[in-house]
Amino acid sequence: MQDTQGTNLDPWYGHYAERTAGLSASEVRALFAVASRPEVVSLAGGMPYVSALPQQLIERAALRAATDRAAVALQYGSGQGVPRLREQILEVMALEGIHGSVDDVVVTTGSQHALELLAKLFLDPGDVIIAEGPSYVTAITVFRSFQGEVVHVPMDDQGMNPQALRETIERVRAAGKRIKFLYTIPSFQNPTGVTLSWERRVEILEIARTSGILVLEDNPYGLLHFEQAPPPAMRSIDSEGVVYLGTFSKTLAPGLRVGWAIAPHAIREKLVLANEAAVLSPSSFSQIVISEYLDTADWKGQISTFRDVYRERRDAMLGALSDYLPSMTWTRPAGGFYVWLTMPEHLDSKAMLPRAVKELVAYTPGTAFYADGDGRRNMRLSFCYPQPDFIREGIRRLSTVINGELALLGEFSQTAPLPVQPVERDVLPPYAG
Amino acid sequence: MQDTQGTNLDPWYGHYAERTAGLSASEVRALFAVASRPEVVSLAGGMPYVSALPQQLIERAALRAATDRAAVALQYGSGQGVPRLREQILEVMALEGIHGSVDDVVVTTGSQHALELLAKLFLDPGDVIIAEGPSYVTAITVFRSFQGEVVHVPMDDQGMNPQALRETIERVRAAGKRIKFLYTIPSFQNPTGVTLSWERRVEILEIARTSGILVLEDNPYGLLHFEQAPPPAMRSIDSEGVVYLGTFSKTLAPGLRVGWAIAPHAIREKLVLANEAAVLSPSSFSQIVISEYLDTADWKGQISTFRDVYRERRDAMLGALSDYLPSMTWTRPAGGFYVWLTMPEHLDSKAMLPRAVKELVAYTPGTAFYADGDGRRNMRLSFCYPQPDFIREGIRRLSTVINGELALLGEFSQTAPLPVQPVERDVLPPYAG
Repeated sequence: MQDTQGTNLDPWYGHYAERTAGLSASEVRALFAVASRPEVVSLAGGMPYVSALPQQLIERAALRAATDRAAVALQYGSGQGVPRLREQILEVMALEGIHGSVDDVVVTTGSQHALELLAKLFLDPGDVIIAEGPSYVTAITVFRSFQGEVVHVPMDDQGMNPQALRETIERVRAAGKRIKFLYTIPSFQNPTGVTLSWERRVEILEIARTSGILVLEDNPYGLLHFEQAPPPAMRSIDSEGVVYLGTFSKTLAPGLRVGWAIAPHAIREKLVLANEAAVLSPSSFSQIVISEYLDTADWKGQISTFRDVYRERRDAMLGALSDYLPSMTWTRPAGGFYVWLTMPEHLDSKAMLPRAVKELVAYTPGTAFYADGDGRRNMRLSFCYPQPDFIREGIRRLSTVINGELALLGEFSQTAPLPVQPVERDVLPPYAG
Repeated sequence: MQDTQGTNLDPWYGHYAERTAGLSASEVRALFAVASRPEVVSLAGGMPYVSALPQQLIERAALRAATDRAAVALQYGSGQGVPRLREQILEVMALEGIHGSVDDVVVTTGSQHALELLAKLFLDPGDVIIAEGPSYVTAITVFRSFQGEVVHVPMDDQGMNPQALRETIERVRAAGKRIKFLYTIPSFQNPTGVTLSWERRVEILEIARTSGILVLEDNPYGLLHFEQAPPPAMRSIDSEGVVYLGTFSKTLAPGLRVGWAIAPHAIREKLVLANEAAVLSPSSFSQIVISEYLDTADWKGQISTFRDVYRERRDAMLGALSDYLPSMTWTRPAGGFYVWLTMPEHLDSKAMLPRAVKELVAYTPGTAFYADGDGRRNMRLSFCYPQPDFIREGIRRLSTVINGELALLGEFSQTAPLPVQPVERDVLPPYAG
């Protein structure tokens, strides 16, 4: 991790804001350069497989933005987003049980920017954000960059544990700290792939409501289910206590950088002001390309195509894990992009990464997804981008590395070689709470 | 101005960050709705005249992004921006005397987002930003949104007054406050249209250097000169003490939302991290469209076309002001988008605006461009968007309103009608420092 507060070589050292100390290079970021070498099988990134998109319809949408719609697409727009696109976003969200008004939707520069703006609107230094442990790496980065403190709640194979949530809220408040959000990715979570059950959605919303805590529901993957759909969005149950974040990055293309938030009215007003201050208006061009695509393409059919693509890759990964790493534990996602692998004690996924890259396979170390240093035994394995054969080969290479590590540990151990612990598959290991 | 801290009707009132109190709706924002009515001549907005763009080349660039370049354009990209575009940005900046490395350039979501990210990186609550008085409205909004305090330095027709700058630095520091930036728009300033002379650029950089103050040079309009080019950019004189902000919004199209910063190395590193936290990466699609346009179009010729378009409009505005409002004072910009009008004492441009809109003309009240309530006698008149005939008609309508106000003031005055003060044209009135 690079030093970000500056050094004596930086003449502006000492001029930065306090919050800048919290802005560090993520472990995922450092991997981008590595993962882009063609000989490496990257199971590290979260890049969607955009080659599966309908070339001609994307072309037509781009052309429309540059011709008939150019007067709007090339110009500054509203800080809230193009009205027609906001209507279409309501249609997308209706698939997950959400109903609302176009007036409550704010278009942002990817849902990432909605996260950033909400952090800016809500976080004073020292404020606490409760999140699943593990959680999305760049959400943790954003919260830290506004001097927020992320406190994790353990999960199991049904998602965040409600009883642990209650205890965490109590403990944080007893320590005199203010809780600003409960941040959750309820469907096919990043990085675990786990989905929060219906019963827990209801229970967690009730806990948040009675505790007066705003819920940030981040849902990039909900429509990418491989079997049945996940339970309805939490926003479909509670419109006043939830800010919901959606995106076109996974169902269409991340390069357009268009996401959105739907928020309670007063928060929505502030979001628009914050959006205007930050970027004046989100890209009209990108919004028009997407709006034209949604108007002309069978976008629901395209989401089905993506489901088929990713299901095949998920199956390739799970199969390869069974074949090559039968003694490890991993999650079995029913949608999304990620599998979460747990290795035996004493293995360290971050320390192991350079050896993995030498074996031409990359992953994201588990520590990236915790604010507290946890996750050393874990890694996130992405099945979204490589073809199934490459996924299989990647897991094979990974097994070479892990088995080599285990052998090495055994050799150097004062005692007998570490036993490979028998673990039950399909069950997410409990995380230190 | 709407209440932004919330009310009792907002259940999340009291949950917002302290900084959110500083995030208010700008006066420009409230005008967007009004100005969009077709019967209103809007001299209020800063929308470039994108209809002057070469339709076929934009179309071709968009098509390339959606076809041959789709694998990059539709995907996540680098948080620093597309390498080829960063090379092209160096070619654009070379026109204003700036030389640097592609490694020092960071692509942002419009230069507005570079401003936001720099404010985030540098401003602690109470930190001071020194800026011209008046200055760009949404820069003031951004600085306030991070609890910065904007202190204005008066300008005259040569731009910011160096002696006043020295005194301001001394006064602010004597009050125990930290100065984080000197924010300046040296060429065809927004809102005055005034250009900082070469001698003053050198002198102000020297003041900043000896005072240890970082300069933010914001230069959206420098290439849009109507007679000779403005003096070289301040960044061309000092690469270590200046962060320079550029944009394609005025020379190409704002709807793509692509701007950039070129910054000293250590600041550049932090800017990339902040950019990644905020939006992961700027839009690959927009960047590829622009890169393809620059590779295939006579973009320098197109900037000449824009100069011709805006010169004609500037002339129409100056001519109409001479004809219809001969007793007022205004600036005579040699480039850019704006004229700054000063009315006699006792007139209030903000209070007058509803009457102006009733007469079907809109402008931006001068108070929008000051952090301290100054500017009531002033208004910003934009000549960038309406056709010359409309500009002339807009100024005619404005004269009706102003003359009506003056007559009214005379009638209701206890003393004799207010004399219209004889003022020298071409000289920017001194601002209260």
